[in-house]
Amino acid sequence: MNGGRRAANSRASRLLYYCDMAVECLFCRIASGRQEAAIVFEDDRLVAFLDHRPLFPGHTLLVPRLHFETLPDLPAGELTPLFSAAKGLCSAVERAMQADGTFVAINNRVSQSVPHLHVHVVPRRPKDGLRGFFWPRGKYRDAEEMESVRVAVRSEFIRL
Amino acid sequence: MNGGRRAANSRASRLLYYCDMAVECLFCRIASGRQEAAIVFEDDRLVAFLDHRPLFPGHTLLVPRLHFETLPDLPAGELTPLFSAAKGLCSAVERAMQADGTFVAINNRVSQSVPHLHVHVVPRRPKDGLRGFFWPRGKYRDAEEMESVRVAVRSEFIRL
Repeated sequence: MNGGRRAANSRASRLLYYCDMAVECLFCRIASGRQEAAIVFEDDRLVAFLDHRPLFPGHTLLVPRLHFETLPDLPAGELTPLFSAAKGLCSAVERAMQADGTFVAINNRVSQSVPHLHVHVVPRRPKDGLRGFFWPRGKYRDAEEMESVRVAVRSEFIRL
Repeated sequence: MNGGRRAANSRASRLLYYCDMAVECLFCRIASGRQEAAIVFEDDRLVAFLDHRPLFPGHTLLVPRLHFETLPDLPAGELTPLFSAAKGLCSAVERAMQADGTFVAINNRVSQSVPHLHVHVVPRRPKDGLRGFFWPRGKYRDAEEMESVRVAVRSEFIRL
């Protein structure tokens, strides 16, 4: 991406990057306490806070304190803490809001309002108006198109 | 939930549960190879395959082989393999489909078409029509309502 990003390999240099970015990045400002937020949970790696423009009340955002743009950018060692907390937030948000389920989502770049990885945890109820998102679905033209897509995704996955 | 579910504490009993459920659960059938699917990736714990009614071509579903209904039901030890694979799929789906980003989503119960935990990984492009999902957003009535929600979610999270 840029020099700062390429240098961000060690924890120390990532901390420097985090500080460099902090002026611009809203979630870095929240993580460092320089921007107020309705904090739900925080530890040395993560901060969770209420989205101030929620899909529904209780809509919570979970972010790593360090600045990573997308899920693929997150180092392997940060996966377990992030998704342990996300799992816990599913239970907490559902119970707190007396909801029937939750929606967990990550936008990687497209539709990502703040370029700092964040996990949405949203309380859900039947007929709450969000179901439409997953419809209408498309179809593959034919079996050949589906197979070519399958092979393409598989090939890229294996190369990682 | 039921006797089978309550018994599902050890890996052995979960395997029995998985077999009991397999008649009904589509994703258990795919995981055991009794239902055909366009498999993108599989190992001893996980299977990823193309959604046959995709939001966009390349829309991939990632499931644990064992039957867990929702993310909160997933044992802690299964989090890292699942989300390592989800992270890899983000890169693979984006590259394979020459997309600009991805959307990662889990529906816990509400809008969950198959009651077997699955992670959606969907390729995204600007103006592809999905942005609408995250709008319109709501607002908290006032600071007091937001604070009461914050305290409720935080209290449930701390109790876990």
